[in-house]
Amino acid sequence: MTKIDLHDYVASVQDYPEPGVTFRDISPLMGDGKAYKAAIDQIVDFAEHLDVDLIAGPESRGFIVGSPLAYSMGVGFVPARKVGKLPRKAVSASYTLEYGGVNTLEIHEDAIKPGQRVMIVDDLLATGGTINATRKIIEELGGVVAGVAFIIELEDLHGREKIMEAGDVPFLALMEY
Amino acid sequence: MTKIDLHDYVASVQDYPEPGVTFRDISPLMGDGKAYKAAIDQIVDFAEHLDVDLIAGPESRGFIVGSPLAYSMGVGFVPARKVGKLPRKAVSASYTLEYGGVNTLEIHEDAIKPGQRVMIVDDLLATGGTINATRKIIEELGGVVAGVAFIIELEDLHGREKIMEAGDVPFLALMEY
Repeated sequence: MTKIDLHDYVASVQDYPEPGVTFRDISPLMGDGKAYKAAIDQIVDFAEHLDVDLIAGPESRGFIVGSPLAYSMGVGFVPARKVGKLPRKAVSASYTLEYGGVNTLEIHEDAIKPGQRVMIVDDLLATGGTINATRKIIEELGGVVAGVAFIIELEDLHGREKIMEAGDVPFLALMEY
Repeated sequence: MTKIDLHDYVASVQDYPEPGVTFRDISPLMGDGKAYKAAIDQIVDFAEHLDVDLIAGPESRGFIVGSPLAYSMGVGFVPARKVGKLPRKAVSASYTLEYGGVNTLEIHEDAIKPGQRVMIVDDLLATGGTINATRKIIEELGGVVAGVAFIIELEDLHGREKIMEAGDVPFLALMEY
C-alpha cells in the first residue's frame, strides 16, 4: 500500500481571500475517499488516548472534519454555529476575524454536560480566534477541552500559541504551511 | 441490544422559525454517539446498493449527515456551499426558500467528473428546493444523482414529489413528520 501524502490534496489558491494571501483549500482532500479517510483516521488515532466524550467543530468546514471523527469514535458531534442558526437556548462567544470584523459562535446550552471532555476540530488553524471562542463556550457550559486537531496549521499566524495561552491542551495538525 | 428509536432524539421547537411552525431539530441526535451512528449506518445500508462515487450535502447541516456517510463508505464528500464561500471556480444554482427569499448554492467545478454517481443527503427534507438546486449543479457538471437521503422528511411540504418531478431517484427518509 502506497502511503498517501495529504499535501497532494491541498489546492493552494493565490491572492484569496485578499491580495498577497495564499488560501489552502482542502476541498480536493475531502473529495477523495482515500485521502479523506486517511486524514480522519490519523485524527482518530490521536484522539483515542484523550478520553473524548464529544467532538465540537465550528461552522462550517469544522463540520466536515468533526462529524466523521465523531462517527468513527462513536461519540456525539456538537456544532458551534454562527449566530441565529440554533433553534433553542444557546451560549455564545465572539472573536475577531483574520481579515477584519467580528464573528460570533453559539452552542446549544444542553449540548455539553458539566465534566464532559470535548475535542475541538477544524480544517485549518489560522489565528486561533474561532477555536478560542469555541473553547470559551465549552468551558462556560462546564465542559473540558480534551484536545484540538486540525488538517492544516498556518504556522506564521501563531494560532497554536494563542490556544496554549488559554491553557495547555493536546494538539495535532496533520500538515503545516 | 435495545433498538434505538431516533424519534427520541428529535427536539420539536414550537413557533420556530415562524409562529405556527414546529421546527424539527436533530441536534440531540447528532450529539448522542449511539443515535448518530445508528442514523448514519441506516443511510450507509441504503447507499451500499446504489454504486455511489461521491456524497454531496448542502451547507451546513447537510455536512453533518453527508461527511460521516462519505467517510464510512470510503468515498469523497462534496459540499454544496452558500455563495462566496468557495475559493475556486464553481457552478451555482438558486432556489426559493421555504420562508421567503432566494438562496444560491455552489459546487467547485472540479469536484464532480462526468459520469460520477453522486448521492445527495441532508438532515431534513422540506420543500425540496435545496435538493433540486444541488441536483441541478451535479447534472450540469455531468454527474448522475444516484439517490437522495434524509434524516427527516416533512411530508406535508411535498418535497419528495418535487424531487421526483426532476427525475425518479432512490429515496430514503429515516423519519417522517
